Amino acid sequence: MGHHAERVTERTNRAVKGTTPASLAEFLRVRAATEALAAPLSAEDQTLQAAPECSPTKWHRAHTTWFFETFLLAPRGIAPLHPEWATLFNSYYVAVGPRGARTKRGMLSRPSSAEIGEYRRAVDGRVVRLLESAGDDELSEIEGVIALGLAHEEQHQELLLTDIRWALHDNPLLPAYRQLGAPPHDARASKLSFQMLEGGLREIGLSEGTEFRFDNEEPRHSVFVEPFALGRRLVTVGEWKAFADAGGYDDALLWLSDGFDWARANDVHAPMYATRDGGALVSFGLGGARELHDDEPLANVSFYEADAIARFMDARLPTEAEWEVAALTTNADPRAGNFVGDDLLSPRSAGGEGVTQLYGDAWEWTSSAYAPYPGFRTRAGAVGEYNGKFMVNQLVLRGGSCLTPRGHVRASYRNFWHPHTRFQTTGVRLARAGDR
Amino acid sequence: MGHHAERVTERTNRAVKGTTPASLAEFLRVRAATEALAAPLSAEDQTLQAAPECSPTKWHRAHTTWFFETFLLAPRGIAPLHPEWATLFNSYYVAVGPRGARTKRGMLSRPSSAEIGEYRRAVDGRVVRLLESAGDDELSEIEGVIALGLAHEEQHQELLLTDIRWALHDNPLLPAYRQLGAPPHDARASKLSFQMLEGGLREIGLSEGTEFRFDNEEPRHSVFVEPFALGRRLVTVGEWKAFADAGGYDDALLWLSDGFDWARANDVHAPMYATRDGGALVSFGLGGARELHDDEPLANVSFYEADAIARFMDARLPTEAEWEVAALTTNADPRAGNFVGDDLLSPRSAGGEGVTQLYGDAWEWTSSAYAPYPGFRTRAGAVGEYNGKFMVNQLVLRGGSCLTPRGHVRASYRNFWHPHTRFQTTGVRLARAGDR
Amino acid sequence: MGHHAERVTERTNRAVKGTTPASLAEFLRVRAATEALAAPLSAEDQTLQAAPECSPTKWHRAHTTWFFETFLLAPRGIAPLHPEWATLFNSYYVAVGPRGARTKRGMLSRPSSAEIGEYRRAVDGRVVRLLESAGDDELSEIEGVIALGLAHEEQHQELLLTDIRWALHDNPLLPAYRQLGAPPHDARASKLSFQMLEGGLREIGLSEGTEFRFDNEEPRHSVFVEPFALGRRLVTVGEWKAFADAGGYDDALLWLSDGFDWARANDVHAPMYATRDGGALVSFGLGGARELHDDEPLANVSFYEADAIARFMDARLPTEAEWEVAALTTNADPRAGNFVGDDLLSPRSAGGEGVTQLYGDAWEWTSSAYAPYPGFRTRAGAVGEYNGKFMVNQLVLRGGSCLTPRGHVRASYRNFWHPHTRFQTTGVRLARAGDR
Amino acid sequence: MGHHAERVTERTNRAVKGTTPASLAEFLRVRAATEALAAPLSAEDQTLQAAPECSPTKWHRAHTTWFFETFLLAPRGIAPLHPEWATLFNSYYVAVGPRGARTKRGMLSRPSSAEIGEYRRAVDGRVVRLLESAGDDELSEIEGVIALGLAHEEQHQELLLTDIRWALHDNPLLPAYRQLGAPPHDARASKLSFQMLEGGLREIGLSEGTEFRFDNEEPRHSVFVEPFALGRRLVTVGEWKAFADAGGYDDALLWLSDGFDWARANDVHAPMYATRDGGALVSFGLGGARELHDDEPLANVSFYEADAIARFMDARLPTEAEWEVAALTTNADPRAGNFVGDDLLSPRSAGGEGVTQLYGDAWEWTSSAYAPYPGFRTRAGAVGEYNGKFMVNQLVLRGGSCLTPRGHVRASYRNFWHPHTRFQTTGVRLARAGDR
Repeated sequence: MGHHAERVTERTNRAVKGTTPASLAEFLRVRAATEALAAPLSAEDQTLQAAPECSPTKWHRAHTTWFFETFLLAPRGIAPLHPEWATLFNSYYVAVGPRGARTKRGMLSRPSSAEIGEYRRAVDGRVVRLLESAGDDELSEIEGVIALGLAHEEQHQELLLTDIRWALHDNPLLPAYRQLGAPPHDARASKLSFQMLEGGLREIGLSEGTEFRFDNEEPRHSVFVEPFALGRRLVTVGEWKAFADAGGYDDALLWLSDGFDWARANDVHAPMYATRDGGALVSFGLGGARELHDDEPLANVSFYEADAIARFMDARLPTEAEWEVAALTTNADPRAGNFVGDDLLSPRSAGGEGVTQLYGDAWEWTSSAYAPYPGFRTRAGAVGEYNGKFMVNQLVLRGGSCLTPRGHVRASYRNFWHPHTRFQTTGVRLARAGDR
Repeated sequence: MGHHAERVTERTNRAVKGTTPASLAEFLRVRAATEALAAPLSAEDQTLQAAPECSPTKWHRAHTTWFFETFLLAPRGIAPLHPEWATLFNSYYVAVGPRGARTKRGMLSRPSSAEIGEYRRAVDGRVVRLLESAGDDELSEIEGVIALGLAHEEQHQELLLTDIRWALHDNPLLPAYRQLGAPPHDARASKLSFQMLEGGLREIGLSEGTEFRFDNEEPRHSVFVEPFALGRRLVTVGEWKAFADAGGYDDALLWLSDGFDWARANDVHAPMYATRDGGALVSFGLGGARELHDDEPLANVSFYEADAIARFMDARLPTEAEWEVAALTTNADPRAGNFVGDDLLSPRSAGGEGVTQLYGDAWEWTSSAYAPYPGFRTRAGAVGEYNGKFMVNQLVLRGGSCLTPRGHVRASYRNFWHPHTRFQTTGVRLARAGDR
Repeated sequence: MGHHAERVTERTNRAVKGTTPASLAEFLRVRAATEALAAPLSAEDQTLQAAPECSPTKWHRAHTTWFFETFLLAPRGIAPLHPEWATLFNSYYVAVGPRGARTKRGMLSRPSSAEIGEYRRAVDGRVVRLLESAGDDELSEIEGVIALGLAHEEQHQELLLTDIRWALHDNPLLPAYRQLGAPPHDARASKLSFQMLEGGLREIGLSEGTEFRFDNEEPRHSVFVEPFALGRRLVTVGEWKAFADAGGYDDALLWLSDGFDWARANDVHAPMYATRDGGALVSFGLGGARELHDDEPLANVSFYEADAIARFMDARLPTEAEWEVAALTTNADPRAGNFVGDDLLSPRSAGGEGVTQLYGDAWEWTSSAYAPYPGFRTRAGAVGEYNGKFMVNQLVLRGGSCLTPRGHVRASYRNFWHPHTRFQTTGVRLARAGDR
Repeated sequence: MGHHAERVTERTNRAVKGTTPASLAEFLRVRAATEALAAPLSAEDQTLQAAPECSPTKWHRAHTTWFFETFLLAPRGIAPLHPEWATLFNSYYVAVGPRGARTKRGMLSRPSSAEIGEYRRAVDGRVVRLLESAGDDELSEIEGVIALGLAHEEQHQELLLTDIRWALHDNPLLPAYRQLGAPPHDARASKLSFQMLEGGLREIGLSEGTEFRFDNEEPRHSVFVEPFALGRRLVTVGEWKAFADAGGYDDALLWLSDGFDWARANDVHAPMYATRDGGALVSFGLGGARELHDDEPLANVSFYEADAIARFMDARLPTEAEWEVAALTTNADPRAGNFVGDDLLSPRSAGGEGVTQLYGDAWEWTSSAYAPYPGFRTRAGAVGEYNGKFMVNQLVLRGGSCLTPRGHVRASYRNFWHPHTRFQTTGVRLARAGDR
């Protein structure tokens, strides 16, 4: 996921010297949320790294802290507390063999989780003091960096959960992150229908403004969209069963060529973490293993599976422009949805009217390759250094998931992963041509 | 490359029963061209496969023949000459482990090159007889399949040359395909400049029509393009030297992340087939090894290198829409350019006015992921079966190369390869925002 | 290393019901030694697994305990405390994909180190009660299993140290296991000389008897040995420097073919954990990084390196028969030597007369492939099930190391590892033909 | 296989200047035999390389010729005909990345098979002229080199056949090397029984002498052998079926640990080239595919399979000392047996009395690791340079096969391959302790 931003949030009343800026409360809230997510995990749990694309819990806790030290405190003359930790917790360092280091994050028994907790508290104190003592002329820039640091930390909050899920799944005892029930089932979950949406010359992305956004959301620009129809809810577990039972995983005609090769090479016949048990689909989640309900949204599928399922259902995936146009047209509320704060930590069945589940529940694969918007520019400085460097070989996902912090996503928000990725909470939204 | 099409070419005077249709001459011309390209190669040469993505010369000769047997003759009741060869020369067969078969094409000592020559002549005779005896009502459909088969064969003509180049390069003696000189140098090759092009709502792709096209060129559709500037010629070897000498291959800031990893993992510091020798860049081509001229277009670079070189030159790669808009706007002639018929088998320096080298010389990497056009539909029948299955993880290239048959490409023609591909004759065209 | 044995130690005075058997004290001593070795390590440290051939500290602690539960308690009707842990800590379980499980031992955050400590104490209590309540008729068999379990646990004590060394080395901070100085240097360390030993028909291995031995040491059998000369001490770091400085790592004539390929493929130019820094050789050990003294025995080299160094020094490695004949002929004391109890945790320079360092310091690679002795028989029962299954592709090592518990090795003791292994404390003893 | 030797054959009457030495006839006979084996293969066939451990037919033809140029002609001032071919056909050249070159032998379309034929004839002429013009003082040394070159060439004759078998098997059409019937079945093929052999201090290997031998057969030395029993014939296909039908491939208790892992990783459930078809075992051989007879000797099994089958049959493999003692004791004739000259090119069922099939039919895996004999010395000069470099990780095989030239093997002859090797004609001879 992209990592850099400038957030300037709800700061209208804060600037009088001596009063507490609203950004201070926001800072403390987000920082505490990370620790709350880590709290159910032992020091040993927090050391685990299941795969090169994951990081240990305590690494997430330290890296997000290193971010504030490096991009907020250091430029203002405040030296790092543990300079020797820089190589451990810096994800930006590129050199010969960087993957080597990345794959060894699970070997960091030291510093301990306890030391990292102390590190977080010490840096928090320094940030608070900086904020409290900042002059009016500095405050805006400081708050900009803090906003970016918090958006970055919220991304890592989601990763913390997806990564520990994988790690616990590697233990034959299948221990739970913590006690969780099945998400409540909404009786209104219904047969899939499609909503018609108008095409034409539309605008997506964000123009310059004061609300926080990542650079990949800029600039606002025109796209021509044909009329299209969008599935009113996410594809469900029951619909996946129909695909699987019809031999979908073995029918080359349903798949992209690279996808079929990938499925063969990895013997893929179910979503990640899930196993078929007769008619049931049993999945390991943060609450342990449980049978999924047929009306639950499907999750933990790759782009390849999403694309094949869509073809099986006589549909296709939406483009990211279509998704954003739909979100803007339907005026969906980005804060309404099943987010991490709802504490289900699992997608739940759809129950609303109109186009539902656009936000929360599961990230929605689009058919759009992740690419720079026309006129995209890299921002100045170290933070902006690598902004566009992931813009190849990945697909855009939209809308957030049940593990995303509420308020983190918006209509223009672009997530992105390689097409084989399955350890994120990734689901399927269907689209069709508008004239059908 | 895409493989399926319906070509109906220059057939205005052909339909009177008893006269020879123009398509017959075209059929014989293209079929003979394949044999002419294979002629300098011994039976042993024709058996070589350098890599899984390559095929032996004689496989190309047999596969393109199998295509006519399978899609033209068999549906009309003419049984295949060697039914047992079907598994050898069928590239469409998908099953568990298809790559296994693909990687073993170099083990096909039998049938011999001579037997494949006989096979070609026998199938040619059958096609000729079919054409000559066809009723008026059948002719149009037959000629459609033939047009597709010939377009397909022309694609394999280019592959035949790129594949044997790799194979001969694997021999420490570096034998030449045949005697070739350096391409003549055009004294007018000049400093790189950019041509401004207007943006707006434009149309690209092809609507239904009678001229041959592959399905991925359809349908014609609207795109919104910002004003842009396009490099008037391809990037040269001299410009590549500037990039390399400035440490471009080792400067992570110039690269996409996946690209930098790829370059590290494969120790890439020069184009494929090329080695730096002091100030010189020596490359192995179809005529053997020779030093490249600084004004020659750069070729055999990956998308990753093309993208990094563009960034180094304070530019970017064009989108495929921009490329097609430029080709249409400048009204460039798709038959004018350095094609295989010119027998240089190497890109040559640019000498014209305006935007040059759009066609021929080297395929031009675009920044556009290969994806279906809005409204793309798979064609009916076995030929159309897999039309869209390559539409992920690949980038579009435009314009043809010095190894492409003249007349094969057009403004709407879409080639596509994975971003690390270097064994094709792939070069770099620069673009910039229009307001700079 | 082999894992199974029947030890019947020093039990002459113990059998009177109600008195404490000597085996009880031995049991408690060895079990406590494991915990003492683990004590400097945090729960996080104890979870680390650096490579598939290593195991986490807490896994060693649990596996050795599982051994007593499975082979001592369960057959006597005492059910396991945590039946669900069996798959976690059973190294004997063979099934499709066993390596998968083996490579995931580092993912076992649960059970925690603390729970494993409780597990050990609970099992210890059960074993003590079993011993105390055993009838005279049962005691001998029980003590046999205990002796085997303790020999097995001592092997894991050494592995615990070699494995945590690798794990800590993977941390860029290079943390020490605990504070350790350099081993004291013995001023008598001298120029290498050779001791002549007589050949003839000799006997090696052990006949049936009451002292504990692993099955691979049986039976005693005749071998014909030519007269030979044995190096009086281990090859030193200084002698390794002469080899390296003469280009030994790049001189194919000094190497076995497989070894040279291995060194090339892994870019081997120094012992594991060591880097050349000008004239110095700096190595990371359990006490952290330090410069090695030229008179210290070389360690952490593969069989391939050992063999090449021997050839460079105009010598060869001894066979295991030669080594055992020398040990028996010189009557060396297997308890005298630098063992783990000496707390150097590093080989030290040789200072004695005659053939020195036969026991302790570093395991000595022999040129003998690990194979069954003539008449070797697999023992009955689950413990003996796999006794000979490692007898291919490995080389025998003799004599123990500075990380081996004192009393664990003897003249007939056979250790074995694949020839590329370097994470054990493996060194070089030279031999030559006797008539030189 | 070892490659170097000094052969001094049947030269009692040859030395009179002007008469033709017997070695000349032998030279021409062996050289012609190579060409006869290659004759059924087209130029395309001769270019194929199925795996890195194989070489193309024409490479064998050229390499054996290069050997005479390099070790016989060049030292006598006769410059090579094609100096630029040295890197192509020199198997002795070791450098960084030698495997790269080795894996690319199948890319040598040039020089052509025809050119290699001319090369052979030209070198033959030079050797003949050298022999005819040699003075008495030179002849002995020249004939020594020739004897070595011919023994080397005979090894490559066998490899030529095993390598083309693999190559043709990679073609889905399964073409035959040439027309061959099933070997005749000997009605006397009988139930397996064992012959008792005495133990004691015995001598194996060769002392210095005038008959040709490879260096690894020297020196003659004493070994102590326990009494043992040897299977009177090779293990048969029928006995393999009993092993397979009892689930032998999936029973870990029967296997060495490395072997079981190898069988799992490679999904091994039948000998190489063979597939089970109901009760039948169908194998692809040089004559194409055919069903094997239950009494035929099993072939194309790895050491791992041989070892597991022996354990299943309540036996073990012999050591190489036991094999040689048996061969000497029974006084078997090394020229009597099923060799390549018998033109079956397949093992045949045993029909004799006593210990049969010691020579020919199939190479017999021993349990002995390939190691230098006590007192082994590398010979001087370039030829002897690498004599011992293969003496690790390989197992000794004895006795020759149906693809070995008659007269090539003897009681002391040592072949060797890695334990997973299956493309050689490798079978199973059983042994047991003598006191059973």
